[in-house]
This record gives sequence, C-alpha cells and structure tokens, in this order.
Amino acid sequence: MPHALGKHLLVDLYGCPTGLLNDVAALETVMVEAAHRAGTTVLNTTFHRFSPCGVSGVVVIQESHLTIHTWPEQGFVAIDLFTCGRQTQPGRALTYLKRALQSTRSDVRQLVRGQGDSSPKK
Amino acid sequence: MPHALGKHLLVDLYGCPTGLLNDVAALETVMVEAAHRAGTTVLNTTFHRFSPCGVSGVVVIQESHLTIHTWPEQGFVAIDLFTCGRQTQPGRALTYLKRALQSTRSDVRQLVRGQGDSSPKK
Repeated sequence: MPHALGKHLLVDLYGCPTGLLNDVAALETVMVEAAHRAGTTVLNTTFHRFSPCGVSGVVVIQESHLTIHTWPEQGFVAIDLFTCGRQTQPGRALTYLKRALQSTRSDVRQLVRGQGDSSPKK
Repeated sequence: MPHALGKHLLVDLYGCPTGLLNDVAALETVMVEAAHRAGTTVLNTTFHRFSPCGVSGVVVIQESHLTIHTWPEQGFVAIDLFTCGRQTQPGRALTYLKRALQSTRSDVRQLVRGQGDSSPKK
C-alpha cells in the first residue's frame, strides 16, 4: 500500500462576522496568506461575489488547491485545504484561518487521498 | 439543527489511463461536462498542466466547485464535487466521471458541510 498522495483538511467555521463573509477582497487576501503559511506556491486565484450575498473563492497552488465558500447569513464558512507533498503544512494555515475569520467554533476533518491500489491501467 | 448547507463528494479514482491524466484539454472538457450533468451552472474554469506530468483543474460553479488533480504515473485521480442547493445532482456527475476517466476502481466518500450551530457572530 503506497503512502497517501494528498492531505485534505475540510474546515467548517461557524460564528464568523457577516460583513467579513461578504468581503471578497478581504477573503482573497486571507486565503492567499493561508496558502503562504501552509508553505505552498500560489499559481492563480479566482474569487466571486454572489448577489445578494456570499463569496466563493479558489486558490490554485502548485500542491493542489484551497477553496472557500461563505454563507454570511449563517456566519458559516466551508474551507478545503488540499495539499500534496511532504513539505506542506496545512495545519499552520488552519490556525491562521480560524483567527483571521474570527470563528467561534470549528469542525475540522482530516482525510487522506489516494491510498489504494495505484497501479496505472495502461 | 439546520439542514446541511453543502454536499461534498470526495472521489478517488484508480486505474485511469496515464495519457488521459496528462491531457489538460480533455480533462477540462470532462469536468465541465460533469458540472452540467450535476445540474450546476459553470462560472469559470482554471486548469494547469504540470511538468513533467499531472494536471490540476478547478471548475467554479454557481453552487460551489468541482476540482480535479491527477497523478498519471499512479493512474490516480482525486476529484471533489462540492455543491449546495437541493436541485444539484452530483451523483450523476460521479457516474459520468467514472466512465469518462476509465477508472477500474473508485473510493467515494460523501460528507455534508455546515450542519452545526450557524448563528452569526454579529
């Protein structure tokens, strides 16, 4: 059985300020900083502000991706930190994100990706 | 306790053809088609071909995101289908993706996002 190819943190944050969760520029800044704190290399970003509210954003990194989706009315944020490589440190990004997004409660699940039979088909 | 805000399918596919997993154009076409089959609305896409091999791609949709990362040497693909709203049908995308990517084995996990206390902070 090979080692896992990817580390995936699924981060649900609650109790975040409504205004922040609608601020697309601030959220992009926060997510790019999170990528840097995880020790990853940012390739590009795409962020979108929805009407009447909510933001979706993706930070594509050399080592996979970070995503964020916000539900401002509920104070809720769903973040994914998907990284590969042994050098990445998504836990550092997580610590930063909880603080930066001012969450009062978090639900974090850590999964591994790609642990099964990985022999190529052809 | 409110209903879940997001549905998240984590799809690990094994045994996929090496050539296909390096074909960035084909993979973008497949992922956009998967978004359509899930009944979602595509906002934009960003795909990247790595050297010497591998592809990362994101399809940003009105209802959250689809992502793909490939490890061609291992025949391995990690896909995320994150959708919100009751109308989306990620299961249809999953059925399509298994076939389109010619996987011989899959490991699919289904999670919900945002089920806890969602009262906003302020």
